[in-house]
Amino acid sequence: MNTEIEKKETNKTQTQKKPIKTKDVNQKATKTQPQQKTATAKTITVGKNSKEKLKITFLGGVGEIGKNMTAFEYKDEMIIVDAGLTFPDGDLPGVDIVVPDISYLVNNKSKVKAVVLTHGHEDHIGGLPFLLPEINVPVYGSRLTLGLVENKLKEHPKIKAKLISVKPKNVLKIGNFAIEFIHVNHSIAGALALCITTPAGNVVHTGDFKIDFEAINGQPTDIERFGELGKRGVDLLMCESTNVCRKGYSMSERRVGETLDRLFAEHKENRLFVATFASNIHRLQQIMDLAEKYKRKIAFTGRSMINVSEVAMKLGELKYNKENVIDIDKVDKFSDKELLIITTGSQGEPMSALTRMAANEFKKITLGENDCIIISASPIPGNEKPVYNVINKLYKKGADVIYDELADVHASGHACQEEIKIIHALVKPKCFMPVHGEYRHLKTHKEIATALGCEARNIILPDIGMQVELCNGHIKEYSRVQAGQRLVDGLGIGDMDSSVLRDRKQLSEDGICVAVLNLSAMSGEMTSEPFLITRGVVYSGEQETFMQDTKELLINYLKDQDVRDMDPNLIKQNIRRVIQNFIYKRTARRPMILTIILFD
Amino acid sequence: MNTEIEKKETNKTQTQKKPIKTKDVNQKATKTQPQQKTATAKTITVGKNSKEKLKITFLGGVGEIGKNMTAFEYKDEMIIVDAGLTFPDGDLPGVDIVVPDISYLVNNKSKVKAVVLTHGHEDHIGGLPFLLPEINVPVYGSRLTLGLVENKLKEHPKIKAKLISVKPKNVLKIGNFAIEFIHVNHSIAGALALCITTPAGNVVHTGDFKIDFEAINGQPTDIERFGELGKRGVDLLMCESTNVCRKGYSMSERRVGETLDRLFAEHKENRLFVATFASNIHRLQQIMDLAEKYKRKIAFTGRSMINVSEVAMKLGELKYNKENVIDIDKVDKFSDKELLIITTGSQGEPMSALTRMAANEFKKITLGENDCIIISASPIPGNEKPVYNVINKLYKKGADVIYDELADVHASGHACQEEIKIIHALVKPKCFMPVHGEYRHLKTHKEIATALGCEARNIILPDIGMQVELCNGHIKEYSRVQAGQRLVDGLGIGDMDSSVLRDRKQLSEDGICVAVLNLSAMSGEMTSEPFLITRGVVYSGEQETFMQDTKELLINYLKDQDVRDMDPNLIKQNIRRVIQNFIYKRTARRPMILTIILFD
Repeated sequence: MNTEIEKKETNKTQTQKKPIKTKDVNQKATKTQPQQKTATAKTITVGKNSKEKLKITFLGGVGEIGKNMTAFEYKDEMIIVDAGLTFPDGDLPGVDIVVPDISYLVNNKSKVKAVVLTHGHEDHIGGLPFLLPEINVPVYGSRLTLGLVENKLKEHPKIKAKLISVKPKNVLKIGNFAIEFIHVNHSIAGALALCITTPAGNVVHTGDFKIDFEAINGQPTDIERFGELGKRGVDLLMCESTNVCRKGYSMSERRVGETLDRLFAEHKENRLFVATFASNIHRLQQIMDLAEKYKRKIAFTGRSMINVSEVAMKLGELKYNKENVIDIDKVDKFSDKELLIITTGSQGEPMSALTRMAANEFKKITLGENDCIIISASPIPGNEKPVYNVINKLYKKGADVIYDELADVHASGHACQEEIKIIHALVKPKCFMPVHGEYRHLKTHKEIATALGCEARNIILPDIGMQVELCNGHIKEYSRVQAGQRLVDGLGIGDMDSSVLRDRKQLSEDGICVAVLNLSAMSGEMTSEPFLITRGVVYSGEQETFMQDTKELLINYLKDQDVRDMDPNLIKQNIRRVIQNFIYKRTARRPMILTIILFD
Repeated sequence: MNTEIEKKETNKTQTQKKPIKTKDVNQKATKTQPQQKTATAKTITVGKNSKEKLKITFLGGVGEIGKNMTAFEYKDEMIIVDAGLTFPDGDLPGVDIVVPDISYLVNNKSKVKAVVLTHGHEDHIGGLPFLLPEINVPVYGSRLTLGLVENKLKEHPKIKAKLISVKPKNVLKIGNFAIEFIHVNHSIAGALALCITTPAGNVVHTGDFKIDFEAINGQPTDIERFGELGKRGVDLLMCESTNVCRKGYSMSERRVGETLDRLFAEHKENRLFVATFASNIHRLQQIMDLAEKYKRKIAFTGRSMINVSEVAMKLGELKYNKENVIDIDKVDKFSDKELLIITTGSQGEPMSALTRMAANEFKKITLGENDCIIISASPIPGNEKPVYNVINKLYKKGADVIYDELADVHASGHACQEEIKIIHALVKPKCFMPVHGEYRHLKTHKEIATALGCEARNIILPDIGMQVELCNGHIKEYSRVQAGQRLVDGLGIGDMDSSVLRDRKQLSEDGICVAVLNLSAMSGEMTSEPFLITRGVVYSGEQETFMQDTKELLINYLKDQDVRDMDPNLIKQNIRRVIQNFIYKRTARRPMILTIILFD
């Protein structure tokens, strides 16, 4: 066991040889709060005491895809890796977004030293506005990641965040933690894997990644570094699992560029539109290069496309000729074949530019038969219907539409099985925990890891709230902490309980019927006609008869009852039951029944 | 043009040479109402007068996938091809199923002579219980199709249907219509394409199909007959479009059998489960054959699996050794390796056997580590989430789960591009209309048809309500008729209007707040405290303060108002606005506000 420690000490010497070179991005950054600072170089502390423990706490992103968040804790120091959000589905009606329950972090607030971000996607940074107001610690990430965070925090002006940028090969020293950043390919630029070294052992965390040997920025995932780390000894690998069920390799981003090139060449006379993810900078770069090649002016549309492209241009992540970019208001001055419009809406988002164009609700652009629209994205699972709705509408306008079913216009940003195997083979970890995936992904990832030689007893499939300890080259489940969802609905954060959602669900299925009865406290008789109102229950044409019949039913029912000495709750219950049975018999629907009894 | 007619007359002579051979299935059928009868042989009438018109009216299944229904009308005779349903999505909260609006058929009731079914899937037969009570005409289809219809109609005992079975190569004569049935492969047995001949021209309608040269029942789609018809001249082809965006060929059902065989061999010691579509008889046949090969007893579970397998066994569509099938209650008497359980739930349906097993709610079976569950199906688009939820739960029980992402355990029943091209090449139609698909499918199908030589002016992309006429070898849009959706919600059929659904939608997003105010008709003052109730708006912990604050708000608001001479509707409106603004400011939610004012 001492050997491992020595290995890590070798590691220390090695990494010390590479002093951290960082550049203060403030020189280029805008003057808005919060400002980005730069990591300062420090020496690295590595494993000295094999009896110490590193606690890893899963607050999101395991057993699910979305809202990634993991805490690494050594003695009284804690760093948080990623702070994501997830978008709710039909099970959470009316909820805007979902972020992790951070009770554990808040209860250990004094320990928390930093948030480290692997990349700038919403499921990795979107939870920050709900974390920083409670725990305001420095946030580390690549320049683009922090540029996107800055942009996001503009909507939360009260948050003063300390953003510090890092680069691949930088090693960040925070107390007993040394965090090395490793360049990886992903569907966003500036994605980083982490090697987290503590006295209790070291962990390689891949973040989201793929291995693109023909990467657009010329730099494939730094597999050499994964190999070096593996050679020196890695105690624990945490590897993402999104595409672990897909055989083979992910398609290179360059194939997308080739397809787009062909499409540009084939549609020289058409006005061209490309809808894609704003944050996919390498995709944008390829599209903008093609615009230059085919002598088209570029107009951006859609709020996030404009914001993100501006951030990326300012940071120099997106290289282009300024003269080629025009304002969307100016498109009328150019002929169809001189134009390329880059737009949001690749996911059929209701308010996005492309969706509004398809619905004739976008004033600046009217679509017609000479338009060719390339949707350079795949529908995120669950978004198929809105995406295809938009495609159908675009076709109906006479436009040509090219989407991922018809041509290779999109490449996934996540490693498939063979790429994942490369990482396992290089890192050769003693222990393994699959992350970023539903249980079925984690399970399949475990099978791959065991097939590649990792012992099953050294593999843990984490879930939310699980706390695992790494000690002496072994991992074990240590404890469970409070964790789960915080629902954000309007201004409310985490204030929704299941009864609210259950009520909304029932209301959405069968509507509501409200009955107001005025009873005399003296005689128990009705002092006026019952008042009834329904919403979402019966067709307006039938409403009147329905109401009249229900009223008569109630009048008849109460005629036979002596309610003077009855508990008002019991009266309510009985009346509810009477109405419920009547409506069910008549419609087979079970609306929510609210009975209000007012005593005169 | 006379040539065409002559061709058809040749056709007539040809088809007359093959007398219709049918067998009365009543001998085997159960004695339940409705009974299946058999088509009686008649001579065929074909095109004589090229000035006559065949009107084709689309009532469903175009511009959408689901609720297929098309009417073919010649003079005062009409036949209906298919009567399907579709399942609603999130846009139709609380709606159970959706069937076509049949106003056009009801308005032309005396013309309707028959319903002809291509096969027994819900999107082709599920609308029958909502059609037959209004138009009770004979229903024609293959024996299995009618077996499934019979089974479905058991839930509607008032409907006395006249079911008449037909076979491939049969020609059914109804007035001026001659309908020839052509064997096709699909994910259900007994699927038929149609060649509909009238004096105005002939139409080949593929129904749903694929071309499986290694078909399980030994009979590939009768492409020879498509070729013969093409050679004689087909005026119009109507071809399904579900998989038209998929390149290449669909996988043979036999590949699924091979994969299952391998999985049976690999899991000899495990208790085996296969979840699949009950109606996929050829899949069931393969699974049952493997059970025999590997000496396992078969237990069926899930209502539709038990019902459908019984129908198929009775009709001889499913061949098996009776001794191999045991009751699900008897599984405890056999060891794991002697058992195969065939179950419903391949789509994660909430009440299905597999979903209940995964949730520990299925008493007869407790899942554990020695169980291997094969999900022999793909999630239908939109069902991904419930399917993967079930898979995750099964894995968590320690069971091994094999599904379509991991192995070839499912084959689509719909033709891909190359198969579709085979049909076009064989039929060589003068005119073409793509059917069964969203607009994007129809559009892509049109491109394929033109690439194969069909003139663009002879192609129409139909939508619901469109009426097309075929005359003299040409088609043109003729008219539009009332058509669309009938929503079935509980006992209500088509009684839902958009306001009901809009209300349900709003209720589901943000809940409801009901305010009841008692005002004195004399003074306009409140005679008692306002009564408030909310559902789905605020967290129960906050409910009390929230209510108190709203009450005070209303009391303060009304203090300053003189409502004596105000229109009660205006008072209501004002109060609604006051409450709305207050709630929005406090929560950023917009619940439905119901204001009830009672005047003493």
